[in-house]
Amino acid sequence: MPSPMEKAGILVEALPYIKKFYGKTVVIKYGGHAMVNEELKKAVLTDAVLMKYVGMQPVIVHGGGPEITGMLKRLGIESNFIGGLRVTDAETMEIAQMVLVGKINKDIVGLINDIGGTAVGLSGKDANLLVADKKLHLMRNPDGSEEAVDIGLVGEIREVNPGIVDTLLKEGYIPVVAPVAVGEGGNSYNVNADVAAGALAVALNADKLIILTDVEGILADRKDKNSLLSTVTMQDVPRLIEQGIIDGGMIPKVECCTCALQGGVGTTHIIDGRVPHSLLLEIFTDQGVGTMVTN
Amino acid sequence: MPSPMEKAGILVEALPYIKKFYGKTVVIKYGGHAMVNEELKKAVLTDAVLMKYVGMQPVIVHGGGPEITGMLKRLGIESNFIGGLRVTDAETMEIAQMVLVGKINKDIVGLINDIGGTAVGLSGKDANLLVADKKLHLMRNPDGSEEAVDIGLVGEIREVNPGIVDTLLKEGYIPVVAPVAVGEGGNSYNVNADVAAGALAVALNADKLIILTDVEGILADRKDKNSLLSTVTMQDVPRLIEQGIIDGGMIPKVECCTCALQGGVGTTHIIDGRVPHSLLLEIFTDQGVGTMVTN
Amino acid sequence: MPSPMEKAGILVEALPYIKKFYGKTVVIKYGGHAMVNEELKKAVLTDAVLMKYVGMQPVIVHGGGPEITGMLKRLGIESNFIGGLRVTDAETMEIAQMVLVGKINKDIVGLINDIGGTAVGLSGKDANLLVADKKLHLMRNPDGSEEAVDIGLVGEIREVNPGIVDTLLKEGYIPVVAPVAVGEGGNSYNVNADVAAGALAVALNADKLIILTDVEGILADRKDKNSLLSTVTMQDVPRLIEQGIIDGGMIPKVECCTCALQGGVGTTHIIDGRVPHSLLLEIFTDQGVGTMVTN
Amino acid sequence: MPSPMEKAGILVEALPYIKKFYGKTVVIKYGGHAMVNEELKKAVLTDAVLMKYVGMQPVIVHGGGPEITGMLKRLGIESNFIGGLRVTDAETMEIAQMVLVGKINKDIVGLINDIGGTAVGLSGKDANLLVADKKLHLMRNPDGSEEAVDIGLVGEIREVNPGIVDTLLKEGYIPVVAPVAVGEGGNSYNVNADVAAGALAVALNADKLIILTDVEGILADRKDKNSLLSTVTMQDVPRLIEQGIIDGGMIPKVECCTCALQGGVGTTHIIDGRVPHSLLLEIFTDQGVGTMVTN
Amino acid sequence: MPSPMEKAGILVEALPYIKKFYGKTVVIKYGGHAMVNEELKKAVLTDAVLMKYVGMQPVIVHGGGPEITGMLKRLGIESNFIGGLRVTDAETMEIAQMVLVGKINKDIVGLINDIGGTAVGLSGKDANLLVADKKLHLMRNPDGSEEAVDIGLVGEIREVNPGIVDTLLKEGYIPVVAPVAVGEGGNSYNVNADVAAGALAVALNADKLIILTDVEGILADRKDKNSLLSTVTMQDVPRLIEQGIIDGGMIPKVECCTCALQGGVGTTHIIDGRVPHSLLLEIFTDQGVGTMVTN
Amino acid sequence: MPSPMEKAGILVEALPYIKKFYGKTVVIKYGGHAMVNEELKKAVLTDAVLMKYVGMQPVIVHGGGPEITGMLKRLGIESNFIGGLRVTDAETMEIAQMVLVGKINKDIVGLINDIGGTAVGLSGKDANLLVADKKLHLMRNPDGSEEAVDIGLVGEIREVNPGIVDTLLKEGYIPVVAPVAVGEGGNSYNVNADVAAGALAVALNADKLIILTDVEGILADRKDKNSLLSTVTMQDVPRLIEQGIIDGGMIPKVECCTCALQGGVGTTHIIDGRVPHSLLLEIFTDQGVGTMVTN
Repeated sequence: MPSPMEKAGILVEALPYIKKFYGKTVVIKYGGHAMVNEELKKAVLTDAVLMKYVGMQPVIVHGGGPEITGMLKRLGIESNFIGGLRVTDAETMEIAQMVLVGKINKDIVGLINDIGGTAVGLSGKDANLLVADKKLHLMRNPDGSEEAVDIGLVGEIREVNPGIVDTLLKEGYIPVVAPVAVGEGGNSYNVNADVAAGALAVALNADKLIILTDVEGILADRKDKNSLLSTVTMQDVPRLIEQGIIDGGMIPKVECCTCALQGGVGTTHIIDGRVPHSLLLEIFTDQGVGTMVTN
Repeated sequence: MPSPMEKAGILVEALPYIKKFYGKTVVIKYGGHAMVNEELKKAVLTDAVLMKYVGMQPVIVHGGGPEITGMLKRLGIESNFIGGLRVTDAETMEIAQMVLVGKINKDIVGLINDIGGTAVGLSGKDANLLVADKKLHLMRNPDGSEEAVDIGLVGEIREVNPGIVDTLLKEGYIPVVAPVAVGEGGNSYNVNADVAAGALAVALNADKLIILTDVEGILADRKDKNSLLSTVTMQDVPRLIEQGIIDGGMIPKVECCTCALQGGVGTTHIIDGRVPHSLLLEIFTDQGVGTMVTN
Repeated sequence: MPSPMEKAGILVEALPYIKKFYGKTVVIKYGGHAMVNEELKKAVLTDAVLMKYVGMQPVIVHGGGPEITGMLKRLGIESNFIGGLRVTDAETMEIAQMVLVGKINKDIVGLINDIGGTAVGLSGKDANLLVADKKLHLMRNPDGSEEAVDIGLVGEIREVNPGIVDTLLKEGYIPVVAPVAVGEGGNSYNVNADVAAGALAVALNADKLIILTDVEGILADRKDKNSLLSTVTMQDVPRLIEQGIIDGGMIPKVECCTCALQGGVGTTHIIDGRVPHSLLLEIFTDQGVGTMVTN
Repeated sequence: MPSPMEKAGILVEALPYIKKFYGKTVVIKYGGHAMVNEELKKAVLTDAVLMKYVGMQPVIVHGGGPEITGMLKRLGIESNFIGGLRVTDAETMEIAQMVLVGKINKDIVGLINDIGGTAVGLSGKDANLLVADKKLHLMRNPDGSEEAVDIGLVGEIREVNPGIVDTLLKEGYIPVVAPVAVGEGGNSYNVNADVAAGALAVALNADKLIILTDVEGILADRKDKNSLLSTVTMQDVPRLIEQGIIDGGMIPKVECCTCALQGGVGTTHIIDGRVPHSLLLEIFTDQGVGTMVTN
Repeated sequence: MPSPMEKAGILVEALPYIKKFYGKTVVIKYGGHAMVNEELKKAVLTDAVLMKYVGMQPVIVHGGGPEITGMLKRLGIESNFIGGLRVTDAETMEIAQMVLVGKINKDIVGLINDIGGTAVGLSGKDANLLVADKKLHLMRNPDGSEEAVDIGLVGEIREVNPGIVDTLLKEGYIPVVAPVAVGEGGNSYNVNADVAAGALAVALNADKLIILTDVEGILADRKDKNSLLSTVTMQDVPRLIEQGIIDGGMIPKVECCTCALQGGVGTTHIIDGRVPHSLLLEIFTDQGVGTMVTN
Repeated sequence: MPSPMEKAGILVEALPYIKKFYGKTVVIKYGGHAMVNEELKKAVLTDAVLMKYVGMQPVIVHGGGPEITGMLKRLGIESNFIGGLRVTDAETMEIAQMVLVGKINKDIVGLINDIGGTAVGLSGKDANLLVADKKLHLMRNPDGSEEAVDIGLVGEIREVNPGIVDTLLKEGYIPVVAPVAVGEGGNSYNVNADVAAGALAVALNADKLIILTDVEGILADRKDKNSLLSTVTMQDVPRLIEQGIIDGGMIPKVECCTCALQGGVGTTHIIDGRVPHSLLLEIFTDQGVGTMVTN
């Protein structure tokens, strides 16, 4: 255990980072393992509270995790698939919203408040924060032609009204946002949480977008944990995708980052949410804990 | 259909009421039939939006309605009863919260925004708006002695932190509050929506508390719809209870009113939510549509 | 008489209009019959108060009416005419100002306050609101040449200093402006009330200019009351003048409107002040009660 | 003519006075000779503008002067008298208001603006600044009994709503108030200008009330101009009245002062308005130019 | 060296303390060894900057140290002594002020700014922050009588005008105050830095006064470093002085603390400035590093 | 001695100037004889206080005067000279700073406060107000080549952070700035006071820069005091230097002025500080007391 003097030393080491990020807005996409494991959960949210107290403006956008699937199963709601994609019908959307907004979001809010911050939960429906259009899925037919297929209440974000988030930040609250958008006729739409976080970061003119994932970051060699690319520029991305270094679920995450950068966000980070306090490590140490995607 | 001139006349008739309530805070307990019937729903929320536009500060606290029961049934969750009371165990609470916060609250918010207001949904967990202690049920034993019985996660409001509601009102939003409180250890607690509305009205120093019910108000003679008592003073209440004129489910509602009055709320109203636009009628006409309980 | 329910319905019908004009500045030129008939007077000013309470920012510019002439007559002041125009000498100006500022303006202010608004009267001399240059009249000589003729203290508005009006609006007052401008050496100048209203609308960056007149609006066929042109664009105006559809006293009113539109005012309206509550009808119903002149 | 250096010296001498009155509200009753003589007029209003620029908050309440009488004569309006008092019937009131508000007030406003200040004229009707009750005259009957006699639209100030004056002061304007009050039913009432100034000083919580008169102040010996009492305390007043040292028109002025002092005004001054720049002399020199009435 | 994970853990451990002191004003008397040793100097001021960044409002009052004596020696200024006390004549005061304000204060300011805070130096003369009366020394004559002896420009603080400090705090600066007061006729007066810190803490309504000393705190047994009294109440003080546990230079320091407590300061601390980062240890750990004097 | 009436007249004469400069920022370089002679000192600072009270925003930058040399002599510090220039080594800088910041600045602050203003002293180190780079002296070698020579801690202003000055002005204080800048590593650097005043005027976007000197201004014929050039344009300057009309110590002062003008300062003035109240004369009379350098 470090001595009191060592502890003081560590606080002092954090000072340049605290200074650097003072007053900056940081949008955190919170998902994956870090939302399931109790200890990681507490660590992530403690980091967010600490960020708030040392002068940053953290905004949390959370994903859904396995709980939606669990609840659908319990209710015996079967999912239809079109071209491999789950169709979000009205009943599925209703359950997804209940779990996202009524359970996960409130759990996060309650935990933050318990740790010592003051969180307020929002969905994209509150104050029309996230407005979506219906998103059609482009399916490739056997003859090579493409066809737009209806996959239900899945939305594409068309407009962000960040006023309510600005108000909450200005008054000292930590906003926690569930990825449910409002669409035509007041319907709820399911939106991808990474995309929602990126769009919100742009609308808030955020300094940083941090996406918590279940991988180390972008590895030059997938089999070698030590081959982490700590920085990747937007220009590198197409080549890295071509080389297969960025692939699978990492592709949309990186695209979120480039989108956010093009929208004016300062820097974007894909970090390893399985490491406790990865947020603090990313912000308060030089090494970082993942890959920074930058201009 | 009224002529344009008659329409103008009616708007003009509303002026003294608009003037009278300009800038006043009104807490509306929204529940019962008015939350189930689509047309009534739209009417109530339109009234709230109109109140906002003509300068009032409406705050909506909603109840749960039959949807919680429906969802519990669908999930096959059986309820235990102690002394005739349903025990709110952790699983029941979780479902109740999901339905209240993740469904009903968001439906209301979406509907208000669709009508033209700008609503933000809150639960008692957000910014620790409603803090509760565990409520024990006092059960009378056969020998006449009383015993405190654990009925699970049912809460008694200990503290209201209305800062977040004040912030939202100041910035032009309509706050919509779900009656879920936060208790010891960050647990969620079920609280009575009438009581929550009353406590919030007191904490906000509101001018009016309006409780929407499924009855005409307090009737001197239950069988005679024309025997409505349009005004009842706090002093009358004990006598009216003794005489059985106030009884059953009306007793706790009237107690909410007297509590609110004692806490400084200006006037309290128990009105008939089955009448379309009962809120507007209550506020913009002299006759009113229910019983006012007053000092 | 409409039932309470019908009344509620009418209030609700007004909501989209209330929403649409929330926070908008509306300059109202108040004159003609509506300033003479007691009932119309009360109706117009009630409309203005109602507009204020539902979130608009009405500003009233009034004309002089027959009272100036009456007072001149009582004082035996004879008017000189040049080329058919009354010359405003110093004595005439003094009497005109007394009647406009000291009588008509204060009557309007008093009536508004009695109805429930809070009005403050201004002239163009207060805080140099309206600054004028001397206006010469161009008279055509028998030989066809033009000559500039001195017609006394008649002014052309050179500058508007709307700061005082902004201050009053921001603090919740209804400004009521008498058309007297200040000129060189602190002299008072008579200015046309329609022109003053237009210039003020431009300086305030108003959303609407509404001119109350004693006709139905612009009629395609003067003899047919049903031939009202409900909308006329600026481009139509020259042709309509050429065709004699816009003529006489309507020409300067329409020119005021085009001036205001060119200066950035949103829309302009020439309405029938003889219809009670024509302001409300114009703003809160789709049909309107006159002619809108628009871009 | 003083040398530049002497001029500098004089500015410097003013510094302690400037400092002393920085930010202080001073109500000036402007009337008498100083309102008639052109040179004095300019001197008084220049003083007020200078006071504003060096950080004071002057508020001017003006009287009517001989112009009302002149206009009544021109219009051939005969006055009725009851017990030696002129009855203010509706016609007389209308003329008085026109002259006070439409002529005198605007002249003062124009002159101030010409000198370099920014004045806004008000009457007691604007924003209900001065609210009056009908004042009855107590007439003593031959048998010694008293009788209340109706003398028309003469008002007694019941309520002052100084909000509009506060707004104007805060925004840098010089308010100029005509002594016309609003009474029951929106009627105009004539109020005494000295009394209006005193009541306004109390409502504004002013530091100073200065009444410009046509005498030197209070003289111990009326025949000796050198017998000026430069300070009189409220306690002295009854004795001085009894001794006839304060008498005639000075009595109500002194009563205004004592009223103002009892209402919390800091000091009150009765000064000689016939001396050019008497305001500056009163405020920026030690000798003063009249009598200070003080606690 | 602690691992990144340990570092994160330490930051997290600090959170409850950060939360506890968020927004609190802390006056730090900075003197002794911690002002001489370069490493300690940097540590103390780094702590102050860190306190600022995590939301506290530190205010530093520094002492003079041996530099004044050094400069007096270099200038060959001899000191006169009366009853064992050095007399502060005008020349001595001038030199003391130059060293305190022109050297020590600017060194502290420069160092803070170099570390990353934004400091502004003040003396008690700036904006009349500290106003003093001449302090006479009470000397006991051989016959037991007491005599007040003039010891020159030594001052007793009569008045604190903390406006300038409030302004600087509100705008994000760290105020650094040199213990020179202003007295009669604008003269500079030497005031004791501990006393100045205490008086400033009272005037600022500070939550904490921390006095850095060159001892461990108050020891129950002077010879035993382990006998530190970590808390002493105001009530204990007289007894502890009587017992000789508080004696010598500690007496006036403890008296400063009791004075501050009586003036409303929350808690006061006498800590060991020789320990690096003693401020951080005091604030961010439970053990503390000295003696807390409390109500 | 002028009569009271003449006094009033003089105050009134000042009104147009007071109006003209209301709210304007004026940077005053205070140095030379006016800093040595007690009477002039008081006159200059009284002028500054008066400027503040009549609505200007004076900022004072003072020079060092002979006191630095005196203190160096007393301490027996010998000066090294390179190419005729005194080298500012660390010891010299320390003494210079002590005298500038710890003595001269505080004397000015004390005197202003005694006169009735509220001054706060600053150095360039406070809030990093003045940031300097080391300035090398260009020495011409015998062979005509130039060589950069180290003359110690002499700085060239690289950056001005005027935030602290803005804060003080906004809150009603008079900032008094000592010409000591902060350089690399937190070192103090000596900067020319004229240059500092000019740079600060630019950074504050000042309306006026006034440099107090010990000459009449720019004389067309040095031997003729009556040949004062009251206005010189920037375009004239090169020619006037060539003609030897601007020469010696006047060259850098004029260059300061042109620099300030190029940086956006409204007008610049070189005035005779030996004339009592020369500031007031410059600002409040038409003739002025020196040379205005203008665009």
